[in-house]
Amino acid sequence: MTTELTGTGGDSLASLDATAQAELIRRGELSALEAVEAAIGRIEAVNPQLNAVITPLYDGARAAAMDLDRARPDGVDHAAAPFAGVPFLIKDLMVHTAGDRYCAGMPVLKAIDHRPAYDTELAARFRRAGLLILGKTNTPEWGSLPTTEPLAFGATHNPWHLDHSPSGSSGGSAAAVASGMVPMASGGDGGGSIRVPASACGLFGLKPARGRVPSGPDHGEVWGGFAAEGVITRSVRDSAAALDAVTGAQAGDANVAPAPARPYGREVGAPVGRLRIGVLTQAPGQLHDVHPDCVVAASDAAQLLAELGHDVDLRHPAALDEGAEFRRHFGVIVSAHAAADFDHWERVVGRPLTEADIEPVDWAMVQRAKARPTGRYLESVTWVDQWRRRLCSWWADTDLLLTPTMATPPVLLGELVHTVDDPMAGMAKAGPSIVFTSPFNASGQPAMSVPLWWSDAGLPVGVQLVAAPWREDVLFRVAAQLEAARPWAGRRPPVWAG
Amino acid sequence: MTTELTGTGGDSLASLDATAQAELIRRGELSALEAVEAAIGRIEAVNPQLNAVITPLYDGARAAAMDLDRARPDGVDHAAAPFAGVPFLIKDLMVHTAGDRYCAGMPVLKAIDHRPAYDTELAARFRRAGLLILGKTNTPEWGSLPTTEPLAFGATHNPWHLDHSPSGSSGGSAAAVASGMVPMASGGDGGGSIRVPASACGLFGLKPARGRVPSGPDHGEVWGGFAAEGVITRSVRDSAAALDAVTGAQAGDANVAPAPARPYGREVGAPVGRLRIGVLTQAPGQLHDVHPDCVVAASDAAQLLAELGHDVDLRHPAALDEGAEFRRHFGVIVSAHAAADFDHWERVVGRPLTEADIEPVDWAMVQRAKARPTGRYLESVTWVDQWRRRLCSWWADTDLLLTPTMATPPVLLGELVHTVDDPMAGMAKAGPSIVFTSPFNASGQPAMSVPLWWSDAGLPVGVQLVAAPWREDVLFRVAAQLEAARPWAGRRPPVWAG
Repeated sequence: MTTELTGTGGDSLASLDATAQAELIRRGELSALEAVEAAIGRIEAVNPQLNAVITPLYDGARAAAMDLDRARPDGVDHAAAPFAGVPFLIKDLMVHTAGDRYCAGMPVLKAIDHRPAYDTELAARFRRAGLLILGKTNTPEWGSLPTTEPLAFGATHNPWHLDHSPSGSSGGSAAAVASGMVPMASGGDGGGSIRVPASACGLFGLKPARGRVPSGPDHGEVWGGFAAEGVITRSVRDSAAALDAVTGAQAGDANVAPAPARPYGREVGAPVGRLRIGVLTQAPGQLHDVHPDCVVAASDAAQLLAELGHDVDLRHPAALDEGAEFRRHFGVIVSAHAAADFDHWERVVGRPLTEADIEPVDWAMVQRAKARPTGRYLESVTWVDQWRRRLCSWWADTDLLLTPTMATPPVLLGELVHTVDDPMAGMAKAGPSIVFTSPFNASGQPAMSVPLWWSDAGLPVGVQLVAAPWREDVLFRVAAQLEAARPWAGRRPPVWAG
Repeated sequence: MTTELTGTGGDSLASLDATAQAELIRRGELSALEAVEAAIGRIEAVNPQLNAVITPLYDGARAAAMDLDRARPDGVDHAAAPFAGVPFLIKDLMVHTAGDRYCAGMPVLKAIDHRPAYDTELAARFRRAGLLILGKTNTPEWGSLPTTEPLAFGATHNPWHLDHSPSGSSGGSAAAVASGMVPMASGGDGGGSIRVPASACGLFGLKPARGRVPSGPDHGEVWGGFAAEGVITRSVRDSAAALDAVTGAQAGDANVAPAPARPYGREVGAPVGRLRIGVLTQAPGQLHDVHPDCVVAASDAAQLLAELGHDVDLRHPAALDEGAEFRRHFGVIVSAHAAADFDHWERVVGRPLTEADIEPVDWAMVQRAKARPTGRYLESVTWVDQWRRRLCSWWADTDLLLTPTMATPPVLLGELVHTVDDPMAGMAKAGPSIVFTSPFNASGQPAMSVPLWWSDAGLPVGVQLVAAPWREDVLFRVAAQLEAARPWAGRRPPVWAG
C-alpha cells in the first residue's frame, strides 16, 4: 500500500468507493490481497456490533485476490473486470455461490448446512466483474419483512443508531456498506428491499427494471417479475458501473429489458436536461400517515430539483390512489410465490417442513396462500397487469416521480417482528416501510433511493425517484446531479469501520 | 376498377396479396370500397361451404372504405397505413373491436350478444395500419382444441378438402385466407394456433416472439406469455409488413421483445447467408408417431435448404426429449389460465356459469384446474422457466430448428371433438397436432409454418422453422428464400373464391 494511502490511515480505504479502489488496484498502488485484508479487518472490527455478515468467505476471497495479484498487470482485463480486486459482499438471498452455505434466512437451511453446487448467473457475473466475495450478508427469511431480524441469525443493527433496524430485506448489505466494511454489496428488491435499507442506512440503492438482470438458472423471474437484483452503494458511479457489469440476457430469459443506448456509467455526469417531475408525499391510497421527517425529506428534494432547473409539480399517477386494492393483490401474488418456495424447500430438504423449520410469519403466510385457488392468484396477476397499464401511462409526458422512499424513518429493532401469538404482527406493521416502493416492483419500473436527508435524530431518510419503464439512464443522470449538488459521501455513521 | 384488373376477372384480385392490393389502392387503380365490395362478394360466395366468417362486419368496413376513398390521395399517409383499404378478417378470440359481438367461441357469450365497448390495442393497430375489418372468423372455444368446431358456431371446413378440418384454433382465419376471401387474417397462437392451421391450409403463419405484440388493455400477457398474436397470410412479405405495423410496446407492458435492427419488411429478399439448421422429424419425447407425409415434408424442406447452401444436420435440443414432462407442465399452466378465464367470464356474465354455458371440454379442463393449488401452478411455471434455459441454449451455435409443423396431415372434422360421455376425448387425441409447436409457445421463441408440401391426397403439410429468441428477422429472410425457390402462391384449393 502506498504511503499516500497508509498516510491517512485505514480510513481512507474505507472511504473510497468501489471504482476508486479498483483504480488503485489497476494502477498497482494497492494489491487485491491488501484490499481484501483491509476489508476483512474492517468487517472484523465492526461486525460484532452490527451482525451484518453472517457467513464469512475470507479464504475464498484471499485465494481469488492472490490469483488476481499473480495475474497482474498483463493477465487482467480491467475493461471486462472493472472491479478487479474490489471487496464485495452478497446478500444471502436469491444469489448464491458454488459450495458456500446458502440459507435465505431459513432455520432449516442453516441446520442442514445447505450448500448449492453452483453459482447463480448473477454471482458468476459479479465474479467476472472482478469483485471478490468476502461473505454473505444477513436477511430476513425469504425477504418477507422490511427489517433484518431473522430468528436463525439474529438482528442486524443500523450503523447510524444501533437500536434501529437497517430495514430490509437487504439490511445486512446496507449495514455493511454504510459502516465502511465494503464499498458495495448485493441486494434484491421485491417490495423495496434495495431502496428501503438504502434509505434507512444513508446509501444509494437502485432497483433495476424488470428483465434487466437475469435470475437464472434457478428462476425465470422471481416473485412473478416483481423482484430485481442489484447493488447497494455509497456512490452513484459504483451503482451504474455495477449494473453495466451484470446486465444482459441469459439464454432462456423470457423477459429481457430493452438495452440502454449507452453504458450506464456514461450517464454519470452527463447533461440532465430539464426534467418533468411529479411529487407525491402522501402514501399511495392514503393507507398510512407519512412521518413528517419523510415529508420534509421529499419536499427538500423537490426544492433542490427545482433549483437545479427541473419542472417540479405536486402530482402523481391516479393509479397509485388504488393503494388498498393494489396491496391486496400484491399480497396474494407474493404469498403465492412464498408458498411455491415452501414446496421447493420441502423437495430440497427431503421431508415435510414443520413450524420449527421456518419463521412463524412465513409459516402463516404459506398457510394462507395454500388455501387460495390458482384462479385467485391469476386474478391478481391480471389485475396488476391492467393496473400497470393505467400506472405507466402517466410517464408518457413525465420523466420522474419523486416520493419519500419510506413513510417512516428507520424503525426500531423489534418493532416489526412477530410474536408467537400473532405471527403476522410484523407484517401488519410493515406497510409504512414499503408503501411507496412496492408499487414499482409490480410495475417493473426502475426506481432508486437517494440519501439526501438526515433527521434531527441523525437517522437517514431517503427519497425515491421512479423513472418510466426501462429508463435507468434517466435515474443515473439525475442521481449524479443530486450527488454533485448535495454530496453525501462524507457523512459517517457512529459505527464506522475506517 | 381498372380494365387491367377487371380484364382478368375477379380472380386476379383474390390472387393478390395484401401488399399488392394496397399498392393498387395507393396508386388509385382500385378504390378501397371496390376492394371491400369484391371481398364481401368472395366471402358470400364461399362462406356457405366453409363457415369461416361467423360475424360479418360489412357495414363498418364499407363506411371505413368510403372514408378512406374520400380522404385519398392527400389525406392518407400510406407509410403509416401500409395496408390502407385492404380487406381483413379478425379471429374471434383475444382481439376484439368496439361495439362488435365477441364470443371467444363461447355459447354463453353468443347467447348474451356480448359486445366489448373498446378495441383491443392490437385491433386499433390493425385499423391504424389501414386494414378494413370485414368480419370475425370462427375459432374453437378459448382456442382449446386444434380444430375449429365450436358448438356455438359449427365446424369450419378446410378449402382443400371439405371433410377435413382447417385445424385451429385460428381455423376460421386460415380457411378464409386459403379460399381467397381476404389476403390476410389475424390469428393467435398459444400452442400452435397460427402455425397449425397455416400448415393445414397451405399458408404462411408466423408466431411472433413473446413480447413482440402487446395484449393490452385486457392482458399483460396471455396464457402466462405462451400466446402470441399475429396474422396468417399467403405471402411472406404480407406477414413481415403486418408485424412491422403492429409491433412495439404499449404503455404498461411488462415484457417487450428486443426491437429488431431494421423493419421486418426489409428482411424479405435480403441476403440469407449460410445458416446452421438442425432437423427433427420425430415427435419431441417420441410422444406420437409422426405421419409419413409429415416426415417427408420436413425431409424435403431439409434437402431444399441444403441445396440453398445451408448447413443442415439431423440434430435437435435435448430439452425437447423431455416431451412427456413438458406436456404435463404445459397442460397445468394452460388449464390454470382457462380456469381464470372462466372466473372472468362469470364476472362478465354476472352469474355462475353452468355446463350449458361453455363446451364440455373446457368445463372439464376448468374443473381439473380448479382442484389444483396455486403451488402446483407455480411449480410448473418454474419448471418451464428452467427448461426454457436448457432449450434455448441450443440456439447459441445454431440458427434454426426444422420440424414438421404437425405430426399429422389435416385431421378429419369430427376426429378431435369430445363426446358427451368423454369430454376430454378430443383433447386426448390433439397431441399429434401440437406436439411440434407447443414447446415454442412455452419458450417464447418465434416460429413459423411454411407451406412447401402437399400430400398425394392434395392436403397441405407445412414445415416449422424455429429461430433463436427474438430472431424473427432470420425467419423472414429464410422464408422469403424458400418462397422464391419453391413458390406456393399459385396453388389453389378446390374451394376458391376468385
